[in-house]
Amino acid sequence: MMKTLHVSLGERSYPIYIGDDILSQAALLTQHIQGKEVLVVTNTTIAPLYLQSVLELLTEYRCESVILPDGEEFKNLEVLNQVFDELLQSHFSRQVTMIALGGGVIGDMTGFAAACYQRGVPFIQIPTTLLAQVDSSVGGKTAVNHPLGKNMIGAFYQPKCVIADTNTLNTLEDRQLSSGLAEVIKYGLINDPEFFDWLEQNMPALRERQTDVLVEVVERSCQDKADVVASDELEHGVRALLNLGHTFGHAIETGMGYGNWLHGEAIAVGMVMAADLSQRLGWIDGVDFARIKALLIAAGLPTTIPEDMSSDQFMSLMAVDKKVQDGRIRLVLLKSIGKAIMSDDYDAEKLAETLESFQH
Amino acid sequence: MMKTLHVSLGERSYPIYIGDDILSQAALLTQHIQGKEVLVVTNTTIAPLYLQSVLELLTEYRCESVILPDGEEFKNLEVLNQVFDELLQSHFSRQVTMIALGGGVIGDMTGFAAACYQRGVPFIQIPTTLLAQVDSSVGGKTAVNHPLGKNMIGAFYQPKCVIADTNTLNTLEDRQLSSGLAEVIKYGLINDPEFFDWLEQNMPALRERQTDVLVEVVERSCQDKADVVASDELEHGVRALLNLGHTFGHAIETGMGYGNWLHGEAIAVGMVMAADLSQRLGWIDGVDFARIKALLIAAGLPTTIPEDMSSDQFMSLMAVDKKVQDGRIRLVLLKSIGKAIMSDDYDAEKLAETLESFQH
Repeated sequence: MMKTLHVSLGERSYPIYIGDDILSQAALLTQHIQGKEVLVVTNTTIAPLYLQSVLELLTEYRCESVILPDGEEFKNLEVLNQVFDELLQSHFSRQVTMIALGGGVIGDMTGFAAACYQRGVPFIQIPTTLLAQVDSSVGGKTAVNHPLGKNMIGAFYQPKCVIADTNTLNTLEDRQLSSGLAEVIKYGLINDPEFFDWLEQNMPALRERQTDVLVEVVERSCQDKADVVASDELEHGVRALLNLGHTFGHAIETGMGYGNWLHGEAIAVGMVMAADLSQRLGWIDGVDFARIKALLIAAGLPTTIPEDMSSDQFMSLMAVDKKVQDGRIRLVLLKSIGKAIMSDDYDAEKLAETLESFQH
Repeated sequence: MMKTLHVSLGERSYPIYIGDDILSQAALLTQHIQGKEVLVVTNTTIAPLYLQSVLELLTEYRCESVILPDGEEFKNLEVLNQVFDELLQSHFSRQVTMIALGGGVIGDMTGFAAACYQRGVPFIQIPTTLLAQVDSSVGGKTAVNHPLGKNMIGAFYQPKCVIADTNTLNTLEDRQLSSGLAEVIKYGLINDPEFFDWLEQNMPALRERQTDVLVEVVERSCQDKADVVASDELEHGVRALLNLGHTFGHAIETGMGYGNWLHGEAIAVGMVMAADLSQRLGWIDGVDFARIKALLIAAGLPTTIPEDMSSDQFMSLMAVDKKVQDGRIRLVLLKSIGKAIMSDDYDAEKLAETLESFQH
């Protein structure tokens, strides 16, 4: 079973292949490689699992690999430079194709390195986590972190194709699977109420990793995200809705130190906070709030902020988030399940109440 | 006297303002600033000369500045990070406008920082050297160096406008002026034989920095470059002709350590080598070769390679240059004064002869 989605971005359009064990099909990958040079970028967790089998698809090419340390805390300029070192030591030209084999961190770093190396070389994504398959594979956002803010240094840069093999999700830790489900639930909340309903029905099957529901959840998530991205590639408007839960969530990730909380865990709490504020503003009712919280819990996600974060620390960290416009905090909030809006036109006291209520 | 050139790149089009003392006109600058936040990036040489007067144009904005060390040897990721530090410490949003005040290094670094900060913020160039006014101000090439190669990490990213005030050239060292003239002569060699003739006539007036000839030389150079760039923004074809002398020149710059030879000095030698090889191939005659060498000398530029570089070192450094395609060295060579071509279809022995003849 394989599904193919097309992300429509003019001359930067590309296909996403989704299916079980599709990584074994060499042609799927090699049809998108133009030159003779390939650099595979992966990490210490993924390399023992999948690097060898990917390299075996590429015996016709001059192929090198670089294995980075695993974790969000290594998503920085210094570790990125290891990729540039490898590219230059291998004398790779502007015709090199870079392949990101791993989760979101590997995808973000490889994509950004590809955007910058010799001012831009082609790259291909092979996402191996649910989060990367449903999030990083659509949208072309690449970046590294800075000590003062997440994803602050990056580029919009589209891959030539994405190969999302759901078979790779079988080696994923439960906690990582749940982290991916946070983004999945987000798509339902933003603009797809039927998908939210479907997730309520299928959450147990998803957590048991049933192949057909995994393929469907990746496909629907990518389609939902692709619809938003196609209409706003450079995030001047509607695309910002994809940041539901992220302004709160980034503050948690930054405050806890990158890597201690998983991205999906942080935005799960962020979504509950956005839902809480939306309820205080009278935009959603208590039933909707309860459904949102319940689905996140069913997905194995946290819904309360870390023990040792104060409201002051939280606000200070939120102010450096890039969703801040000219000093005012704009937030993605909910009008209903399946309808998110971007707003800075809310009662600031209600935001303070939300922050207060999440204090320990 | 002010001339305005338009670089035509669709929605990325922008104006270049060229004239004497035009930096004193605040509106020229401020009409291109959208938000309320501005970061001026400059260096330790330029800051004492022009920073204060630029800041006085910007009193209506929340404005910060960062002063980098001066020199090609500081054009790297580490120094670039100082710009990101300042942007983040100032809590600047995606609405910040960055201003590059300085030569080519400042332009390249500020442009690349602008391309990457929050995945892209607007920037404006105020080039203060002849090289930057005639080269960096057109084309949108931004980059930093890597220890293994020049300009290896960068982006194509266009400014909102360029303000080339020829008055700033009066504070330029003679050696820096000559370095800029190397790029100017290059435009004549590539596709503008009349301009080459004009330069032969006006070289003394240029070196005396007569205002009218400075304005004209910047205007004609920018126009020549803009014509090439408009037809090939991402350097898939004809734009590569602008690399005349650069493959040889980059090898000199890398071999000597960044900053010891100025960029224009290195490519002056590179152009003589390209002309020498073109003559050996029978494409240009001895008269043309002599005119090229004489004009470079009249501009105060070197025409022989550094004392302590061997031919082996030279070839090894050329092989990592990004103009290398799939392992073959493609060179920009001359069919005549005013007509350059890109070729890898030349007798390799002739290249060896050229390298040999430039040995000390």
